[in-house]
Formats: sequence, C-alpha cells, structure tokens
Amino acid sequence: MLPTGGHPVVYGEWLHAAGKPTVLIYGHFDTQSADPYELWTSPPFEPQVRDGKVYARGATDDKGNMFAPILAAEALLKSAGALPVNVKFFFEGQEEIGSPQIPDFVAANRDLLACDLALSSDGGQWSETEPAILVGLRGGCGVQIDVRGANSDLHSGMYGGAVQNPIHALVMILDSLRSADGHILVDGFYDSIPPLSDADRAQIAAPPFDIETYMDDIGVEGLFGERGYTPREQTWARPTLEINGIWGGFQGDGVKTVLPNAAHAKITCRLVPGQDPLTIAQQIIAHVERNTPAGVQVTTTRLGFIAQPYQIPADHPGNQAASAVLEEIYGRAPYVVRTGGSIPVCTILLQNLGVHTVNFGFGLEDEHIHAPNEFFRLSSFSRGQMAYCKLLHKLGE
Amino acid sequence: MLPTGGHPVVYGEWLHAAGKPTVLIYGHFDTQSADPYELWTSPPFEPQVRDGKVYARGATDDKGNMFAPILAAEALLKSAGALPVNVKFFFEGQEEIGSPQIPDFVAANRDLLACDLALSSDGGQWSETEPAILVGLRGGCGVQIDVRGANSDLHSGMYGGAVQNPIHALVMILDSLRSADGHILVDGFYDSIPPLSDADRAQIAAPPFDIETYMDDIGVEGLFGERGYTPREQTWARPTLEINGIWGGFQGDGVKTVLPNAAHAKITCRLVPGQDPLTIAQQIIAHVERNTPAGVQVTTTRLGFIAQPYQIPADHPGNQAASAVLEEIYGRAPYVVRTGGSIPVCTILLQNLGVHTVNFGFGLEDEHIHAPNEFFRLSSFSRGQMAYCKLLHKLGE
Repeated sequence: MLPTGGHPVVYGEWLHAAGKPTVLIYGHFDTQSADPYELWTSPPFEPQVRDGKVYARGATDDKGNMFAPILAAEALLKSAGALPVNVKFFFEGQEEIGSPQIPDFVAANRDLLACDLALSSDGGQWSETEPAILVGLRGGCGVQIDVRGANSDLHSGMYGGAVQNPIHALVMILDSLRSADGHILVDGFYDSIPPLSDADRAQIAAPPFDIETYMDDIGVEGLFGERGYTPREQTWARPTLEINGIWGGFQGDGVKTVLPNAAHAKITCRLVPGQDPLTIAQQIIAHVERNTPAGVQVTTTRLGFIAQPYQIPADHPGNQAASAVLEEIYGRAPYVVRTGGSIPVCTILLQNLGVHTVNFGFGLEDEHIHAPNEFFRLSSFSRGQMAYCKLLHKLGE
Repeated sequence: MLPTGGHPVVYGEWLHAAGKPTVLIYGHFDTQSADPYELWTSPPFEPQVRDGKVYARGATDDKGNMFAPILAAEALLKSAGALPVNVKFFFEGQEEIGSPQIPDFVAANRDLLACDLALSSDGGQWSETEPAILVGLRGGCGVQIDVRGANSDLHSGMYGGAVQNPIHALVMILDSLRSADGHILVDGFYDSIPPLSDADRAQIAAPPFDIETYMDDIGVEGLFGERGYTPREQTWARPTLEINGIWGGFQGDGVKTVLPNAAHAKITCRLVPGQDPLTIAQQIIAHVERNTPAGVQVTTTRLGFIAQPYQIPADHPGNQAASAVLEEIYGRAPYVVRTGGSIPVCTILLQNLGVHTVNFGFGLEDEHIHAPNEFFRLSSFSRGQMAYCKLLHKLGE
C-alpha cells in the first residue's frame, strides 16, 4: 500500500524473469457510489451469486476484472513456480473520481513502475462470443457554473419583470453552449481535432451495430447528435458537452412563486485526440463569461475530471499479442474498437513511463456498470485467468 | 369554522345594523413555510416582541393585518354596543397556496357571504408616513415541465454524443420561452392585453421610485426587463414568466459524468388585465409541446396557482371612503398604486358576489414578507384598529 495523498495505491511485483520484459498490470478497486440503494435486489456491498453471476457494486467495474490477472499469476506460480515475464501490479483507488493524485504518484514513482508494456484490466470484450481490442478512449474535463442574483430569494410578484432571474440566466448560458443537434458552440472547441479519415470511419463502422437494439436497450425512441456522423462516430470519435446536473430555486411539491437568487449546473466534456482538457475547460469558462447576461454574477470552477484522450495503434506489438490470445480463446479475430469513456491512467502511463496500455478486460456491456444490480459473470473469472496466462506467456516469447 | 375540502374558512357575522350596508372583511390565517429556519433570530412560530415589532411567521402576512379589523369591531362593540354597518368576517387558510378551494366555497355560499363591499386586510401602506390605495393586482398561473429520456441514467462516455440529454432538452425549451430582455415568446401571450394608456403610465409614475435604493435593497448591480417599460410598469402592469425552480441529474459535490434521464422545472407567470390564467397556461403548454426536441418525452402539468388579474377604479366609492380615512390619519392623500403580486380572492368575490374589494391593510414593505424574521410593527395594530373604526363609520354614513 503506497500513499498518494488521497486513496492509496496497492503495488505488488514479481521480478525474477531475468532477460524477459516487464509488464505493469493496472486495475482499480474503487467503485462508483451504489446510490440509488433501493433499486438493488441484494445489498451492493454483500456480493451474492445468482445464476452464475456475482452481484455487487464493483463486480465488473473493476474488482472482478482486476481479480483475473491476480488469479492468472497465482495459477502460473503454483503450477510453474515462476511467471513468463516480470510483473508489477499497480492497483489504484481513485479511478471513479478521475484519478486526481495518480499523475503525481506515477511521476514520483517512475523507477518503481518502469515497464515495457502496461495491461489494463479495466475493460471488456464485445460479447460473450466476440472479442475486441481497444484502440481509442475519449478524454474529458468539467466545469461548474454558479449564478447569483439578488441578496435573497425574491417575491416573483413584487420583483418579477424587473430583476434578472438566475435560473433564466443559467438557462441562457447553457443553451448557448450547444446547438439543437449537439454541435458545441464554444469558440475553438473543434479547432485542433484532425478530421476523421476514411480509414478511421471504416474501422469504426466494422464492428456490428444495430440501431434498433441500441435504442431499445436504453428505452429511447430516437437518437440525437452532431450531423454527418454515425452514432458510433459520435460516441467514439467526436467530443461532447453534457450538462450532468442542474439545480436552483424551488424543487418541492406544489407551487412557490419565488424569484430565486441562485442557480447551478455541472457540465463535463468528452474529448478526442487533439483536444487538451485544460485548454477546453478554459475555452468553456471564457464562453460562459462572454455569454453572462447583465444583472447576475457568474462563477465558473474547473472540476476535478481531467483526462487526456488516448489512442494506441491497432498493430502495436501489445495489441498484436492480445489479439492472438483472444483469437485463440474465442475462435475469431477481435473487433478493433474505441470507447467513448475515459481511462485517465492510459495517458498518465504513456506520458510518464513512455509505454502504451493494452486493454485486456472481460467485462460485458450488459453488466450494469455504474448502475444498480451491477454484476460479473463467474465464467469471466476463468476465461480472464486463462487469457492472462496465455498473454503473459506470449509476451515472454 | 366552515369546511372547504381543504383548509377551512373561519366565518363570523354581526348583522344588526338595519338599513346599513353590509361589509365583508377578508383576511388569511395561513402563512408561507418558515424555511430556512436557521436564518430566524427567534423561532418563527413563537412570536417575540423586540424594539416595538412582533417577529413571527405570518406577523405581517397576514395574521397581524387580519387582527386589526377584529380589534376595531371589538372596540366599537365595547364602546358603542353596536357596529355602524353590518359586518361579515371571512378568513381563509389557503391564500399562500393559491386558494384552490375558495372559488368553489364562495360560489356555494353566495347568500352567506352576500355584501355591498369587501375589504381585504391582506396588504399594506406605502410607508409609515405615506398611505396608498391599491387599484391593480396581477394574476397568475403555473406549469411544471418534466422531461424524460432513457430508461435510466446513462454513462456520459458510452452514450454522450448520440443520445439526447433531458437537461439540455429542458434548457432549450426554457430558453425558447423568453427573450434575453424578458419578452415572452409564447404565441398569443400578449394578444389580449390592452396597451398601457398615457393615464395608466402617469398613474404608475406618480408614487416615488428611486432606482438606486431599489437595487441596493435587493443587492443587484443592474435591472433587467422588457424594453419600453419602466421597472414599475414592468412589475405592476406587464406580465412575466419566471422559472421558480429547476432540477435534474447530479447535484452533489465533485463530478459525476452522468447523462441523466430526467429533468424538471416549475414556471409561473404573473398576468395583467386581459389575460386569462387558464388560457395562458394552455398557450405555454402548447409552446412547450411545439418546442420539444426529438429523443425525449415531455410532460406538462398545470400547477394549482390560478389567479385572475384584478383592477378596481381609483374613484370606486369604497376607495373614496378608504382614501378619506387614510388622508385623515396620515395627513396626506394616498398614492394610487398597483402591485405585482396576486390576491386571488379579489376576483373570486367580484365574480361570485358582484362586489369589488378595497385593500385596507397596514403592513409595510420592509417587514420581510415570505422571508426569515418576518415582523409587524406594534404601532400598526393601533393604527389599523383606528383606521378600520373610521372606515366602518364612514361606510355607514
């Protein structure tokens, strides 16, 4: 256990494979909040096995996944007495809050963590029968907007019509950030993004995508998004700006004819290669300042979600090894995929250790990540264990 | 005590002034919520006298004011053994929630409440030294907007860019309701409002108004509002649409990169003569439906705040009597004023009993109506008592 200033890092190593490469295996033992608790069938922090699945907060993201390489190392050590490569386990506890102390921790521990390749257990496969390798992750940043008006809530009859309402001011600011079809209207936002190449578009279009199933799964009757891009392109390769939360004034039952004196919103962006999170956050803050109407005061605060976008070539040697193992296990070549999510550690390791990270996890998309009744298939423990054993052998060749 | 289906009505009568007019005296014994409790110096429901003022929730709105005509009747009965007019006391307990059952109650009790004139104790004077008569009140209506997206909150990385965000949809809808300077963009909203006449404008401009004091009192650095109207015209004689509350998604500390599946807002309007609350609510609902973006479902619900705008001529006989009494007590003629607030009972009595309501209350604007540390001046009890004694005598002449 190593201190970070926040949640600690758990580190372990086995470095007796002289002349062999060193592999750093990443995972995270923290989880999202289990809220709303009342929607869980069994208590989120008392794992329960039902129908070949273990239900618990963190079952798939990322405790179950993180356990697979541990099981693999244990099996190899028990059976062969040694590992085919040098292994460093690097497990953190801040992933779900954006790993705020991890950049400093990795920078301060470059020698300890030095390696030839990183593997991340924080991910998944395409389906139970179809493997995938991950070649792109979006980054992100966030800004909170706080609007203040009068020195107290006002009577909407006495003052309504002559005094600016902070909720209206906030609504105006927020509506100025994005067009109706999701194009972001912040100056400079898209400037440094290279256009999607035909090769990118073909790669993104290759994995199967059924729009009806996609909509049915989430219960919407229509999609939405930036024109000229497919839903996969929109979520895998284009940036976003989302209002994650908004609040102000009276939120109870019935009516309160108040002209409130404050309103708040939290927004986060997903970013793609070419975009720098700090630059984008600053552009948003400048936009908010330019679009603040008279009669209110607006404060903007950068949130602690800062993730660089990440890309790894599909033909990187680590991906080649992972692809070969996956093809052997699943009987078919993996899809080459991206994800719209962010795993900050990939960029942190690249910047500090000079190594790419191969995503090698066995979660599946239906496992209620970040939601009530999160689960992990028991079969994924043995499949993940076997896969890690084979991958470590292959990397040792 | 008479049942209404909700909070009851308290009724009392003294009808022994044969041949004299009958006066209905209105007040309300309900109050706004005392929340936020922590800002009160003394407990809101344990009245405390400090510096010649009684501090309590409802002290001025409307328990203190409502008590003045009771004191007057008591004094007249004790001293003269009779009242100069027939008196019916009509005290309700629903004013702060928009008097939902009072229209039906009054309609069902027309004979009981029949009168020649109504007096309302729910109001105030211009200042401690300057009286006022009230000739116009705004009406009002309200609508709640609920936006639903996917069947659960979504991961903003996985789905952001391709799925409509209910908060963005709500922000678009709300921003479409009002221009940046407060002009309401709902079709038909202004159609039935007669233009302000020069006489209206002169009447509104007559009472003193200091814009710097007005802004200082509420702590804003600039005003806001519909072009071509003064702040008094904006609040006394022009309609408004205000977002009273908004909420959706993550409202805690830090970051949650969620694409929420619901967002909500409450809006109320203040309305002026010519506008019908139910028609306006329907126009707003139609506007929301027309401006709902694809990918979300929107529900609109009319709120229980329904008040007709109200006007009484400045030279109505009741106002002439009230003006004469006020001039006698204050030594100066009253200002002729309007208010941006709503007192639904005025229109209810006009429609059902065919009588106008003269506002005759003694609260003052600094008495923290609807706010923490609400108070009523002890001196206003004796002044109100004297004023009601004089007014009842004058109405009996």
